[in-house]
Amino acid sequence: MARMIRPLANLYEQLRRLPGIGSKTAMRLAYHIIDMPAEDVRQLAAALHGAKESIHYCRCCYNLTDGDLCEICSDSSRDRFTICVVEQPQDIAAMERSRGYRGLYHVLHGVLSPLDGIGPENLRIRELFQRLQRESISEIIIATNSDVEGEATAAYLAQLLKPVGIRVSRIAHGLPVGGDLEYADEVTLSRALENRREM
Amino acid sequence: MARMIRPLANLYEQLRRLPGIGSKTAMRLAYHIIDMPAEDVRQLAAALHGAKESIHYCRCCYNLTDGDLCEICSDSSRDRFTICVVEQPQDIAAMERSRGYRGLYHVLHGVLSPLDGIGPENLRIRELFQRLQRESISEIIIATNSDVEGEATAAYLAQLLKPVGIRVSRIAHGLPVGGDLEYADEVTLSRALENRREM
Repeated sequence: MARMIRPLANLYEQLRRLPGIGSKTAMRLAYHIIDMPAEDVRQLAAALHGAKESIHYCRCCYNLTDGDLCEICSDSSRDRFTICVVEQPQDIAAMERSRGYRGLYHVLHGVLSPLDGIGPENLRIRELFQRLQRESISEIIIATNSDVEGEATAAYLAQLLKPVGIRVSRIAHGLPVGGDLEYADEVTLSRALENRREM
Repeated sequence: MARMIRPLANLYEQLRRLPGIGSKTAMRLAYHIIDMPAEDVRQLAAALHGAKESIHYCRCCYNLTDGDLCEICSDSSRDRFTICVVEQPQDIAAMERSRGYRGLYHVLHGVLSPLDGIGPENLRIRELFQRLQRESISEIIIATNSDVEGEATAAYLAQLLKPVGIRVSRIAHGLPVGGDLEYADEVTLSRALENRREM
C-alpha cells in the first residue's frame, strides 16, 4: 500500500492537532491547501505568524491586543468603575456582541481546576487585586461560565473580594430568551425559579 | 462595541476561507492559535509552505508526489497493464486503503461539469491517451464518483476509449457491505438488482 508522501503527512499531522479537526477534516484541508494558489497559502501562513507575533495581553486587563493597552481599556468613553471578570478573551467578544455592558473587563485566563493542577496562582487573580488598589472600582461582575469550575471560581473570587468592600455580583442564570420551559433542564429551571424577580 | 484587533481578524478571515470551516470554528481556531506555543505555530506555517512548495503532480499519472514519479508509478511490483481512472488524488488514497487494487492510476483532476465550464480539455484526458500510446495497457477501470458528473464523465471516457480496443470497465454499484436493505435508497437498490451476479 502506498504511504502518504512526507510533506502531505506532515501537513496532515499539524492540522490534526488543532481542536475540533478530526482526521477526515484534516485530510480534506490538507488536500485543499495543496490545491490552493501559492499566494493564498503564503497569506494563510503569514496570518498565522502575524497573529502569533503581534498579539499579546493588555497590560491592564489581560485581554488580547496588538498594542500596549487593549481597545476597551484605552476607550475613555467606557464606565471605569465596573470590572467584568471573564475566563477567556473570547468571552469579552461575546459580552461586547450583547451590547449590554459598557464597563471594563478582567481576563482570568482560566478557571480553578484542581484536577488539572490549576490553582489561584495560575490565574490573573493577583493582577485583579492590584487593579483594585490602583483604580477606583465600585462593582465587580463575575461572568465565568456556568459549569462546575466556573461556579467554583466565582465563589472563590466572591469570598476573596467581599472583605475589600466592593460590590460583587454574578451574572444571572435562568431560562434562555426564547427558550421553551418544556425543554429546559431541571437545574436551569430551578435556578430560574430561585432567581425570580417581581414584575 | 470593540472591534476585533487586526491580526486576529486577519487570521480569522484566512481560516474562514478554508472548506468546512464556519465562522464559529474559524474563531475558535484563531483563539487557539494565539494561545499555542510560538514554536508550534512556526511548525504549522512551515508545514503549509512545505506541502505547497514540494508537492506537485506525478508526470505520468498526475497523482501527488514530491519527486518526479509518484510512489505507485515507480513501484515495479505493481501490475502495469491496468489503469484505474479517478477524479482526485485523494481517491487514490481511498482505493489504496481498500487493498483491493494492484495496478496503476490516472488522475483526471476533476469531472465534466458544463455548468461550471469544465469540459474535456480541462481534465487530464489527453494525457491518458498519451499514456495508452506509450504503455501497454490492457484494461481501464473507471472509478469516478457515482454522482451525475462522475457518471457522465465515465460514459464520456468509455465512449472515447472503446475505439482504442482496450477493455473498459466501471467499478460496481450496489448495496454497501453491511448495508441494510430497508434503508437503501431506491436508485442504489435498483442498481444492485440490475448488477446481480449468479451465485
